[in-house]
Formats: sequence, structure tokens, C-alpha cells
Amino acid sequence: MNSKDKDISEGINFFFEPKTVAIVGASRNPEKLGNILLRNLTEGGFPGKVFPINPNETEIEGLKAFPNISSVPDPVDLVVVIIPAIYIPDVMKDAAAKGVKSVLIESGGFAEIGEKELQEEIVKIGKEAGIRILGPNTLGVANAYNNLVTAFSTIKNITKGNVSFVAQTGLFSGPILSLILSKEYFGVSKICGLGNKCDVNEIEIIEYFLDDDNSDVIALYLEGISEGRSFLSLAKKAFEKKKPIIVLKAGRTKAGEKASLSHTASLAVNNDIFDATVKQARMIQAYDYDELMDYAKIFSFYADRSNLMNFNKDKGIALLTITGGGAVISADVSASLGFNVVEFSEKTKEKLNEIFTPRVAMKIGNPLDIWPSATLYGLDKCYSIALESLLSDENVDCCFITLLTTEITKHLDLDMIINSAKKYPSKPIAVWILGDFDLTEKFRKKLEQNKIPCFSSITSSLKSLKVYMEYYTRKMYT
Amino acid sequence: MNSKDKDISEGINFFFEPKTVAIVGASRNPEKLGNILLRNLTEGGFPGKVFPINPNETEIEGLKAFPNISSVPDPVDLVVVIIPAIYIPDVMKDAAAKGVKSVLIESGGFAEIGEKELQEEIVKIGKEAGIRILGPNTLGVANAYNNLVTAFSTIKNITKGNVSFVAQTGLFSGPILSLILSKEYFGVSKICGLGNKCDVNEIEIIEYFLDDDNSDVIALYLEGISEGRSFLSLAKKAFEKKKPIIVLKAGRTKAGEKASLSHTASLAVNNDIFDATVKQARMIQAYDYDELMDYAKIFSFYADRSNLMNFNKDKGIALLTITGGGAVISADVSASLGFNVVEFSEKTKEKLNEIFTPRVAMKIGNPLDIWPSATLYGLDKCYSIALESLLSDENVDCCFITLLTTEITKHLDLDMIINSAKKYPSKPIAVWILGDFDLTEKFRKKLEQNKIPCFSSITSSLKSLKVYMEYYTRKMYT
Repeated sequence: MNSKDKDISEGINFFFEPKTVAIVGASRNPEKLGNILLRNLTEGGFPGKVFPINPNETEIEGLKAFPNISSVPDPVDLVVVIIPAIYIPDVMKDAAAKGVKSVLIESGGFAEIGEKELQEEIVKIGKEAGIRILGPNTLGVANAYNNLVTAFSTIKNITKGNVSFVAQTGLFSGPILSLILSKEYFGVSKICGLGNKCDVNEIEIIEYFLDDDNSDVIALYLEGISEGRSFLSLAKKAFEKKKPIIVLKAGRTKAGEKASLSHTASLAVNNDIFDATVKQARMIQAYDYDELMDYAKIFSFYADRSNLMNFNKDKGIALLTITGGGAVISADVSASLGFNVVEFSEKTKEKLNEIFTPRVAMKIGNPLDIWPSATLYGLDKCYSIALESLLSDENVDCCFITLLTTEITKHLDLDMIINSAKKYPSKPIAVWILGDFDLTEKFRKKLEQNKIPCFSSITSSLKSLKVYMEYYTRKMYT
Repeated sequence: MNSKDKDISEGINFFFEPKTVAIVGASRNPEKLGNILLRNLTEGGFPGKVFPINPNETEIEGLKAFPNISSVPDPVDLVVVIIPAIYIPDVMKDAAAKGVKSVLIESGGFAEIGEKELQEEIVKIGKEAGIRILGPNTLGVANAYNNLVTAFSTIKNITKGNVSFVAQTGLFSGPILSLILSKEYFGVSKICGLGNKCDVNEIEIIEYFLDDDNSDVIALYLEGISEGRSFLSLAKKAFEKKKPIIVLKAGRTKAGEKASLSHTASLAVNNDIFDATVKQARMIQAYDYDELMDYAKIFSFYADRSNLMNFNKDKGIALLTITGGGAVISADVSASLGFNVVEFSEKTKEKLNEIFTPRVAMKIGNPLDIWPSATLYGLDKCYSIALESLLSDENVDCCFITLLTTEITKHLDLDMIINSAKKYPSKPIAVWILGDFDLTEKFRKKLEQNKIPCFSSITSSLKSLKVYMEYYTRKMYT
């Protein structure tokens, strides 16, 4: 790494790990975004120093306010800007004068509404002063490991985890982060909103995440691709490192392209070329936010099994159900997705004979429906013997499990499922839970806290399992 | 209707509206299915008389028990059977002797495990005695309007509504009913499990639902089709009556067929023929349970708009969002599904100018992203003006709305959205809510209690809206 590279890398570092942050547009008014932003840092546990910049105030939220960046006595690692676009060139000059290396511009009002010259002006000032600019038109960054959150929502105590997001939309720093914190049991490492990408783009951020030990899974939302070749080679590097990249690329239709043009001024990308790139670089493609989240979850939970890579080529799946209707649909969906709904080995069948006695009105098959057995021998025993038998079967690479949440199943021993999953770490499990809303959430919490991913539909369970299996059975690119 | 038809129809009536029910296999043991089943009726508010049949008891759950059906002093409209299969021919003879017209057999152990002769035996007895048999191998029926529930789960107070289910699986009488009661705000009319369909099949049940004033929407889960031609003509009749039929047909793959054979002994149906039938009869096809439920919801909420039928052929959609990222994906998904993401009329644009002033860093377009406007003029005002403008636009047939649930949006005036929806009853709305889990549920509750359907993904919102619009723009078959 030559010294120039080092500077660039430091510029990127500062967006996630600044020791000092100046907020241009900090406000006393709790309704203003400049106030929420400030409080995210002061109340959220960010350990660095924070400097409110506002020429009309002397103190905001208990902190001394400064009229401009230059008047801050300490060095400033990161400047966050939330004032009208027209005043931002002056902020850039002020930052340059102070020797700042990283500026995050949250304000909109640039290329996305046709104000290209204004955007070019700030880029020019940045380039001349060696300042890296993130944005404009973005909610910025979040880092669970130092509580740096620059979003407009009050967000505290992000669950530390291994998924990092790079997104050309504020959704991930706001609502999706709220969703993760209130609903998901996988944690977040870092989030980076890209906005208009006037300077810093996805390439450098992905590169930074690839070197970040806390980022095992990288999820992208993109409206445009800044540098096709760099993107491809970086994605290949990610595959070598076994850091899966899940990508949701928006603007695949004329209507979508038009919308993306007015959102982030992104130029159209040919779908065929993009899809080929995704395939070649072994990325995982999602087509909606819920898919992106489902895939992030399964890769997050099973990140530490990434060195196994010993699945059969056939991707043999065992379908363990407790409902005939669920059995048939899960078989249909498995087959449609290209799973091999395998025949169990003779050894497995022998083991299963303990619960598939002649008294049971159901034969051993895949899907294995244990409902009739359970009415005779109890739920726990049947799940336990079935799960142990299927996971130890040499034809089985992964397992889909149905859990029902009703009066009859509410005392099911989930620890038994968790222990089986732990005993066979190389065989991923996806769980579909159906029934009572609260009980479903209770079951999901227990299982997901133990890294067993649960889903609300058969299709989402199996699609998530499929992309996971596909990823780890792929050969290195040639 | 001749007298024979009347008898048949009465036989079907008794499955849903019996005045007297005998339960063969009623048990004192609260762990036994025969006890849960009995208590569903005694504690659930079923207004008819219940007779436990058990030769070893004199009293169960406070009711006098009888050794057999014949010894019941009153006429018996419906016999529900939950004892081992081998004893059931004797029960049939007993029912015949009593002059019973309807027997629901919940027990498994017949054709689905190869015991075809046993099944034929009970069918023969039934035919000779003029008894209609539902099942065997089913959780039976539920009727929200008289609290008749024959499932093995303790289910009380089913929300009365307009969706009826016919299913070749117990899922709908158990877990899916639990899901509906604990999570959904549309109600249920009737549920009918078909099991092995040894006598009564989907045709007669659908026919019964078509004549039932409480059933506006009919959702089917089928593994086989009993009478192709009758099914087609019945489905056409349903379309004439504007009672949408949503069908989830399992066993579309070899793996699925195999599973369905051991579940309900259903024979394979050619997918092409089935799909053509669905299309010809204007049914709505679903491919997983969550889809079936999403579609049931939108048709349930908008059932009373079924006489409108005045959508443009173009199916012009307005996409109202508050996130750029959501805007682009919703445009992509809309276009992919065949919606026309229309240009708004000049009149609409004029109205929107009130919130899209020169100060706003976003132009008027479809999708309409009101986030920049909302930061200046407030959320409520922007949603209100936008919604009013879009719904009144002559190019717009339906509307997709994004709501975010975060700190900033938590006080959003949902009544304003509800009132707009009421003002334009001919323009269906689908809402995608994203963000904090609890707040999302709170928003959804309020909106769905006012019959505005909400969904957890862009794709499920738009797919549901699409099948709804398609249904009401279809011409009558020729």
C-alpha cells in the first residue's frame, strides 16, 4: 500500500470510526433532523467527541456549539452535514480549511433534482483538498461497534452482529434498521448509505467491509454500478474470502429506471450484463427487501460453517413436517427450486421404524410427516428421532422443518431441535413456523437466538436454504 | 330442485348447521383428541345438542354419554367420528340404523395408507343408507356463525367474516385458523377439511358456499380434482356470482405428487390442464399458503366493491412512497407484474404543486416520493394531499402506499388515509409497512380493521393488488 492508498483508506475509515465528529446543522429544536442526528451520538453511546456547528447557538444538547468547522479546537475526523444544499460549498471550503478528510453530506438537492453543477462544485472542492465525500442525499452510516449512527431516527443500542449493508437509499439506516432491531435476532455490523455517490461509491465501502473482521455478510441495495470491472473483481475477492454478497439491484424496468434517476441520479445498467456479473462473481441476487433480509439472516446464522463446503452436488434435502398439506407444498417448492427430495437410506428408515410402527397411519417417505406418529408417541419423541435420523443420513445435505404453533404443540421441546442442529453443524436447517402469532414469535425467538433461521412461508424458507446451499457448492471462478 | 337433490343438499347442510351432534370417541381424558373435540362444542358456544358416544362412560364433560348412536333419544343430524379406522364400519352401521344423514370421519387409516378396502366398505354402507360421508382423514369443519368447530385444537370465538376455506389438509382447521384468529383482521365464514374425499368432495362444498350469504370469498387447497367438468362449471358459476375462488393446488411436481399420494391418496392432475381450467374459469391461483392468505385478505376487504368493474384496461397504478429505495423497487415490481405506472394528469400535478414547491428537492413523478416534501410541510399534510390527488386522478385505477414505522412517523394520522380510501371506494389500495415491529402491527391493525389491506413486502402488496384488479377487469367467459 503506497501512501496515497493509505490516505484514501483512512478517509473511508473515518466514516465508520471517527474519534471526533462535527455536525453542521445541529439544532436545539427536537423536531429538527439536526437535533435527532446530534442526539443519536450524544445519547446513543458514541465514545468520540461531538461538535455541534451552528452560528446562531452557543450550546446545543449540553455541548458547546461552534460557528464553523474551522473554529473547532480539536482535529475533526468526520463532518456530517444537514443544511440546505446551496450552503454546502461553503461548508466544504470550511472543512478544507480545517484539514478535514471525510465529509458526509446528508442533505438532498443535488444531481437527483438536476442540480448537477452544485454537486460538481462540492466534488471539485473535495478533490482539491483531499476530502472524501459520502453522499450527498443519504442517511449516512451506522456502526454497531461504536454506536455511530447518523440517521434521522433515534436509534440506540444496535445489536452487534456480522451483517453489513451498503445501500443507495436511506431505508437501511432508518426503517430497515428499526425492523432488524425490533424483530430480527441477527445483528448488524455496519450500514452505509451511498446517496448520489458523488465521490465515495460502493466499491470502496465493500472493500472496507471485506477487510472488516466484524463483517461476514455484505448486503447491497444498488440503483447503479459505478465501476463495473472493479465491482466484478471485488465480488470475486469476496467469494474467495467467503464473505457472501447479497445484492438487490433496483431499476430493472423502464419504470424503475425512471424512478431511480430521480432518486439517486443513477444511470441505467443493462440487466443481462448485471445478471451475468452476479453469476460470474458468485453473488446472491434478491428482488425485494424481504428477500434481501431473509438471505442476510441465513448467511448470518451459518457464517461460521463457511469452511465446510462438503455438500453433495445433488443438494439432497430432507423435509420434516407435521402436516400433510405442508408436506406436499414443501415437496413441490423444493422440486421447483432444484432441490433433490432424496430417498432416505435404509439405515435411516430402520431408525425411523421406532416411530413409524405398523400402528401408524403413515409410511416413511420424504417429506416425512410425523403427525400420525406424534398422536401415538408424542411430539417431542417423534421430532427428536426424526431429526436425528434425517440429519445423520448420508444422502441429506440440509433440512426443512415445519413447526406448528397451536394448543397441542405449545410445549414442544425446542432445545431438542437446537441440540440436533448443533450436533450436525454441516447440515443447515430452515424452519417454517405456522400458527398462533404470539407463539410463533416465541418459538422463532428461541430458535433464532440459537442461530436456527425461521421463516413465515414455505417458499421463503426453501429459497433462503437454496441460495445458501448454492453458494457453498459453487466452485471457485475460473 | 327435486326431492333427491334436496336430500343431498340437506346432507351437506348438516355438516355446517347441525342441530344435534354425536361424537363417537368422546373421551374424559383432556389429553385425548376426543376430549378436545367435545370441549370445542361444549365450551365454544355451539348452540346445538351434543351427545358423547363412548360405551365405557356414562358421563363426559357434564353430558350424558351413550354406548352407541342408536341409543341417543333425539334425532342425530351429524355424527363426528374419532376412533381407530378398523371400528368405523360398525359406527356406520350404527348411524344407518339411527337414520343419520351425515357422518364426518376424522380418523386416518384408510386409502392414504393403502387401506382401500376399508374405505370402500364404509362408502358402501353410507351409499346404501343414504349417508353422506365427509373424510375420512380430516379435521372436519368450522363455522364461525354457530361456533361448530371439529378440529383437535381448542378454538373459541372465531371472528365472523366472509372467507370460506375448502381444504384437503387439516392445516386450515388448526394452525391456519389459529393464525387468522391471532393475526388477521379479516374474518372466517366456514372451513371444510376434505381429507380423502371418499364421498363428499370439493364440488358439493363449493356449491354450498356459493349459496351461502356469509361466504363472499372461497379459498381452496386441493391435492386432486374429483370431477374436472363439474369443477369448471362451478367455478364459472362462482365468477358469475362474483365470488372469487382462490386455489392452491398441491402436487405440481413429481415429489409433490408422491407426497400427496401418501397424504390424501389423490391422483395426479396434469398441470397444463389444471392451469387452463383455472384461467378459463377465472379462478385465482396461489402457490404457497401465505399467498393464499394474502389474496384471501384483499378479496375479503374489497368484496363489497365487486359490482364496480370499471377499472381501465391499462390497470393504471399510482405508487405513493416516502422512500426513494421503496419507490424504485415498487416501480420495478409493478412493471414486472404488468401494471401501468401511469403519468399523472395535469390536474393532479397542479394539486401536487402545493407540496412539490420549488423548495422541495424532488420532482412530481410516479412513483411519487413525498419524503422531501414531508420534511418541509409535515407528514400528514403530504400524505393527505398526495393521496387525494392520486386517487382522484382519472388515469389511476389503484394505489400502492408505503408507510414507514419509525420514530419520525409514529404519529402519522391514519384516519386521514382511511377517509381517503372510503372516499374513493372504486380504487383499491394496498399498503406496504416497513419498520419497527410493534408499530407496524399497530398501524396494520388500525388500517385492516378499516378494510385497508397491509402487507410485509412490496412484492406481496403488488401481487395481491394485481390479482384483485385482474379479477375485476376480466370479461365473462365466452
